[in-house]
Amino acid sequence: MSDSSSIVLVLTTVQSEQDAKRLADDLVSQSLAACVQIDGPIKSHYRWAGRIEENQEFRLMIKTAITTWPKVKVRLLKEHPYDEPEIIMIPIAEASDGYRKWIIEQTN
Amino acid sequence: MSDSSSIVLVLTTVQSEQDAKRLADDLVSQSLAACVQIDGPIKSHYRWAGRIEENQEFRLMIKTAITTWPKVKVRLLKEHPYDEPEIIMIPIAEASDGYRKWIIEQTN
Amino acid sequence: MSDSSSIVLVLTTVQSEQDAKRLADDLVSQSLAACVQIDGPIKSHYRWAGRIEENQEFRLMIKTAITTWPKVKVRLLKEHPYDEPEIIMIPIAEASDGYRKWIIEQTN
Repeated sequence: MSDSSSIVLVLTTVQSEQDAKRLADDLVSQSLAACVQIDGPIKSHYRWAGRIEENQEFRLMIKTAITTWPKVKVRLLKEHPYDEPEIIMIPIAEASDGYRKWIIEQTN
Repeated sequence: MSDSSSIVLVLTTVQSEQDAKRLADDLVSQSLAACVQIDGPIKSHYRWAGRIEENQEFRLMIKTAITTWPKVKVRLLKEHPYDEPEIIMIPIAEASDGYRKWIIEQTN
Repeated sequence: MSDSSSIVLVLTTVQSEQDAKRLADDLVSQSLAACVQIDGPIKSHYRWAGRIEENQEFRLMIKTAITTWPKVKVRLLKEHPYDEPEIIMIPIAEASDGYRKWIIEQTN
């Protein structure tokens, strides 16, 4: 499989389901993602100003082509409500062939 | 760690919790997976015939040996209710040793 | 990106939300994780003593530095309520730069 035909998983989180849906539809309508799944509510635990905080969030699982990932990152940094959002990319080693092709076709 | 002792994560999604449980139990009973977790309901956003659709789905997170993954893909393509299901494989770089061995022992 | 500046995703599961929160806060307070998300309830299917079992669980998604991962594994093996817990590590290939730096700063 050549590198340019690979697909990846991109994860980000937001605080409201409304923001999650807005980002999901934005990415799909811009052909930056073939499919976005929204999980949640989930509970995020982290340290802020010396205290441990717990917040409710929703997670986006974004499926896109590896060649589209740089544009997804730029778009999320622009559209995301947080100043410093989690945006992480996880490689998909293999996939069913029809699904991989569908992801590639739906993105640019 | 040699390649044949590696374990992987396989993800797929279905529309009903009933189908999710059927596929999970099928994979475990066939020794194609040591453990399957069902997440959801989740919300999937994608483009279909020029429109953005939103559907409820359930996600299977399948833990298996890398050497069993090709059989998992074949089995899912046969048993999955969708014509073109998402079937993606993500490598697990490392794991607790006892858990990795348990996954390998439970699958073939 | 040098190896020591990479970040990873660590997954584990427990049976109660209370144990999930205890482990999440323990890892964050020990600077072993920058952020832990708790998903669930999820449904786990697996074989035990020849029978297929279904259990409710909660999943921790732990974000940490790759250099901290060995300490996370040791800590989870000590604090986890199961004898043989799932502890798996998935590499994050790329991330938004600010988020990656935040993860590295928060862990040791």
